[in-house]
Amino acid sequence: MRICFIGDSFVNGVGDDTCLGWTGRLCAEARRAGWDVTHYNLGIRRDTSLDIQGRWRGEAEARLPKGLDGRLVFAFGANDCTLMDGRTRVAHDSSLDATRAILADAAGWRKTLMIGPLPVCDDPSTDARILALSRDIAPLCARLGVPFLPVFGVATGSDAWTSEAAAGDGTHPNAGGYAALAGAVAEWEAWRAWF
Amino acid sequence: MRICFIGDSFVNGVGDDTCLGWTGRLCAEARRAGWDVTHYNLGIRRDTSLDIQGRWRGEAEARLPKGLDGRLVFAFGANDCTLMDGRTRVAHDSSLDATRAILADAAGWRKTLMIGPLPVCDDPSTDARILALSRDIAPLCARLGVPFLPVFGVATGSDAWTSEAAAGDGTHPNAGGYAALAGAVAEWEAWRAWF
Repeated sequence: MRICFIGDSFVNGVGDDTCLGWTGRLCAEARRAGWDVTHYNLGIRRDTSLDIQGRWRGEAEARLPKGLDGRLVFAFGANDCTLMDGRTRVAHDSSLDATRAILADAAGWRKTLMIGPLPVCDDPSTDARILALSRDIAPLCARLGVPFLPVFGVATGSDAWTSEAAAGDGTHPNAGGYAALAGAVAEWEAWRAWF
Repeated sequence: MRICFIGDSFVNGVGDDTCLGWTGRLCAEARRAGWDVTHYNLGIRRDTSLDIQGRWRGEAEARLPKGLDGRLVFAFGANDCTLMDGRTRVAHDSSLDATRAILADAAGWRKTLMIGPLPVCDDPSTDARILALSRDIAPLCARLGVPFLPVFGVATGSDAWTSEAAAGDGTHPNAGGYAALAGAVAEWEAWRAWF
């Protein structure tokens, strides 16, 4: 099974001194359980939903050849909600439109999961927008039949995540925070159903 | 510093139950030494030099914005030398042409390193072609001024690499083999000069 994890800096695992992130931890756990998983990490720092809409299909097609069991896990949203020049980088409704377009295309092609946007932690107003986006992604995914795991509260409720983010660049955790997120995904029934 | 590692299944770390590969180990070591490294792994299974020539620049530009310290490490070649329908997938001279084109383009854009092709281990005639390719990549890199590290012998000389490959799919090692390769790159003066 080949899995493309597609998203932003949190998918990349920025800040993790072990360089595993949550995606590496998840795949290592699956391999230890005997599954022949190939891990493709396609997280890019600062990527918004619009950035991902423009690149994900080409990058995933290069990695998931026809006839092989290739799967998709998306996780993005925080960068849409940050401010640039006094405006959010992607407006709320545009984020939802891009997310809908990405997931409809993805789910028509491969087994697909969506994992909800994560907080930036160092700006309450941005985090309020991220939480609102997460809440609106849930019914969108339900309509598309794409399993969705909201994880905003996993991060804000994890002492490891919040303390590591504060000790780091303000936003990205280190190994403990990513391990907490990996644990939450590992327990998710939609992820477990893949194995 | 953001580093794109671009290449084949060995760059991806296929077979490594820890999901770190040699690139994750190298970057984790650099982070432990205090360097703020972001690790982009762009290894794709079965990719030849021609496949990489077609995709590397677009994928790297999406990850290395202007004005940020972005660097490139290439490592490929073995897939060129395997047989498909009775012929090598990429002829020797075409491999060298593609490698020259990639590295000339890369080195004109960002700091660039090249790491030599690795053996497939389970087919002596393929490995003879890979070793011949590695030997011809060396003077090509010298002419371009791109530092080159041949690693064919690192793999064949590593008991961990060869025994793990034999115990696995015949070609890809597990954690011990990738750790041996990461160690060889970590000692390379051209890599060390980046830090």
